[in-house]
Amino acid sequence: MDKKVVVIGAGSAGASACFAARKHTRDVKITCINDEEFPTYSRCALPFVVGGEIENFDIPTVFSFEFYEKQKVDLKTSTIVRSVDTDNKVVKTDKGDFPYDALVITTGGKTKIPGIPGTDLPGVKVLRTRLDGEDLFKEGRKGRTAVVNGASFIALEVAEALKLRGMDVKIVIRSRALRSMIDTPLSQVVEDKLVEKGIDILKGEAVSAVLGDDKVNGVKVGDAEIPADIVVMCTGTAPEVELARSMGIEIGELGGIKVDDRLETNIKDVYAAGDCVESECFIRKTPVLNGLGTIATRQGMVAGINAAGGDLKAPPVLSASVMRLFDVDIGAVGPTEDFAKEAGIDVAISTVKYPSLPHYYPGGKDVQVRLLADKTTGKIIGGQIIVHKGAAERINMLSMAILKGTTAQELNMADFCYSPPCSDTWAAEAIAA
Amino acid sequence: MDKKVVVIGAGSAGASACFAARKHTRDVKITCINDEEFPTYSRCALPFVVGGEIENFDIPTVFSFEFYEKQKVDLKTSTIVRSVDTDNKVVKTDKGDFPYDALVITTGGKTKIPGIPGTDLPGVKVLRTRLDGEDLFKEGRKGRTAVVNGASFIALEVAEALKLRGMDVKIVIRSRALRSMIDTPLSQVVEDKLVEKGIDILKGEAVSAVLGDDKVNGVKVGDAEIPADIVVMCTGTAPEVELARSMGIEIGELGGIKVDDRLETNIKDVYAAGDCVESECFIRKTPVLNGLGTIATRQGMVAGINAAGGDLKAPPVLSASVMRLFDVDIGAVGPTEDFAKEAGIDVAISTVKYPSLPHYYPGGKDVQVRLLADKTTGKIIGGQIIVHKGAAERINMLSMAILKGTTAQELNMADFCYSPPCSDTWAAEAIAA
Repeated sequence: MDKKVVVIGAGSAGASACFAARKHTRDVKITCINDEEFPTYSRCALPFVVGGEIENFDIPTVFSFEFYEKQKVDLKTSTIVRSVDTDNKVVKTDKGDFPYDALVITTGGKTKIPGIPGTDLPGVKVLRTRLDGEDLFKEGRKGRTAVVNGASFIALEVAEALKLRGMDVKIVIRSRALRSMIDTPLSQVVEDKLVEKGIDILKGEAVSAVLGDDKVNGVKVGDAEIPADIVVMCTGTAPEVELARSMGIEIGELGGIKVDDRLETNIKDVYAAGDCVESECFIRKTPVLNGLGTIATRQGMVAGINAAGGDLKAPPVLSASVMRLFDVDIGAVGPTEDFAKEAGIDVAISTVKYPSLPHYYPGGKDVQVRLLADKTTGKIIGGQIIVHKGAAERINMLSMAILKGTTAQELNMADFCYSPPCSDTWAAEAIAA
Repeated sequence: MDKKVVVIGAGSAGASACFAARKHTRDVKITCINDEEFPTYSRCALPFVVGGEIENFDIPTVFSFEFYEKQKVDLKTSTIVRSVDTDNKVVKTDKGDFPYDALVITTGGKTKIPGIPGTDLPGVKVLRTRLDGEDLFKEGRKGRTAVVNGASFIALEVAEALKLRGMDVKIVIRSRALRSMIDTPLSQVVEDKLVEKGIDILKGEAVSAVLGDDKVNGVKVGDAEIPADIVVMCTGTAPEVELARSMGIEIGELGGIKVDDRLETNIKDVYAAGDCVESECFIRKTPVLNGLGTIATRQGMVAGINAAGGDLKAPPVLSASVMRLFDVDIGAVGPTEDFAKEAGIDVAISTVKYPSLPHYYPGGKDVQVRLLADKTTGKIIGGQIIVHKGAAERINMLSMAILKGTTAQELNMADFCYSPPCSDTWAAEAIAA
């Protein structure tokens, strides 16, 4: 009889686990259990549907029911896992029992709601699922006022989306924009962009209460009461580990599922991947939580293949990320200055602004690069980029450089290409190095 | 008394040598001898001035007379070197003698003119110097017909420039476009683009004669006589080594100056850099000639610093290059399939076409990637990319990967960033790997 692989969750990690397991072998029965009613869609696309850049919520479907069928993966939607009996290897759901030989947990994350009064009032929103997105789209009407609470990249994407919808948008930023992703000088550029685009920033204090009687009518920030029709909580996500905890799976210091380098948990034949797990930062060698689809996808593949009988190690985690805020791309890879210092790394930093094209060719844009290197080894450990367009490819180059232990000097003298309409003789990254 | 450094040539390599020497130490007297009347300009910009994208030939000045003065580099323009007395360490020119302690030769390259009849007729053009560019601009008039002989990237840039000027342009391609830079499947894309933009391609045979009595009126290609008002020879460049040869400097098998890893020639205290030298290909470990400004700049820096008393090694050469042809970017790094096989490398090749953005986000463009890996080691050895815009940053990432010995599997699982408007979960390069 074929080996049975059960995957809990059909997000990026879950879907990747299923299809990688299938690609690995035909001789395995794969079941995917999903609490949502939809097949796999891109969570990262949701802000862009809310903002109107993507026409409707069906378009970001990544793997359709038909695709699951074609791949012979049995997708059970709207199915709630009640418990897992690890002794008898059975997943118990509201739709019946699913025995497994190997299990992959991809329960993802959940939006953290701050412990302040009023968060249960109608009008308090989050953006994690497609249903959240549909609700936010409906409520994000022109002429109304939205307060976005948080400064994560989802917060900024939501603020932009609601602004594009014609709302009056205020964003409450406790310390600084994208604090976990980029350092202060580049945060300032981001905040300036928000202001330029007509988004109000309330900075320095958190929302201390959501105001209203039967529905939201404002928020309290410091001594001020800010009127609002909706409040979107973008104050970070936490790994969803309730099920794992109930199974006796070990939870790490940051609240994510602990896994080994093959993504197996402390329970044999039970793997975990994606937002619900703790990874190890390649540079800091300390646990790190990621909310990144890229890492979820790669981990999902590894967990799926291992569950199906393969033997792969999870790839190194550098948390390479990128976002577009109106007309600028913001990218980052590796730890920020604060995180690097916390980890005891003696950091050398270079920040430059350099044109993307030679001065004599029209259309060049400033590229702002911040490079972090380890003073002891000379190796690049992190990089941040702000540029009109094209941060992704630049971050990928830096990610490659970091993964391979490249020194600043090697990066500086690297054989990079040049042609007046495409790039300058020296890339900004090489100058920064 | 200060050490005397003399640099022959004020192109990318020469200028870099001067300013790197100056940055290295204030205690050196630097003289730069240039046969042209202009200070340093970008040769790579010339096709774009001819085509009208850059307004005039002054704009691509990279280092002005003022800049030379400010850096205390004594620039002697319109000065012809007659000979170098290496025993007494003196450069003899038509404007007097220049004694040196260390000499840097950056005599660049010259356009190869094929040994066929008629190449001395008025109307036969090349594009190497600013004066060539000014002449080509004057002659490249609307309504006239140009034949571009060659399929190098300069040939394609010239063909585009003359087309943009309103000329009827025919390009004679003996084998295939960009043969030394990209492989057949991608060459075809390039040739299709030329045709789409209304440039005629005569393929399969070389120009066998330039026709005309007192000026060009056509060319002979095979049995056909093609009318033409001007003929531009873009049939490659050769290192300019006459002076070096006269000094007893060793010339390599490809006709370039032989240098060691510090860019010193066989004559002590005489360095050479840029288009006039032979480098070693990082992958093939065989000599290679480069006509690339990037490599000239980096080598110039190293030669200049060493001439000024420093001790640097020349960086590895991968010949990363990029060009824009109308609305596509074409980039390449490392050897092509043919060159790799010639060098005895057992090559694994992957060619993919993948969208730059996820299917659900509008505006994605196809990225065509061709990756070459060494089957024995699994390491990436070369890459070629065609994409609407942004090949440069992608090539730089691949260049970094190759320099650091990255395997295809590592590239496939690398921590790359993603956000719907910027990039997909899997970069095309990772898919290809």
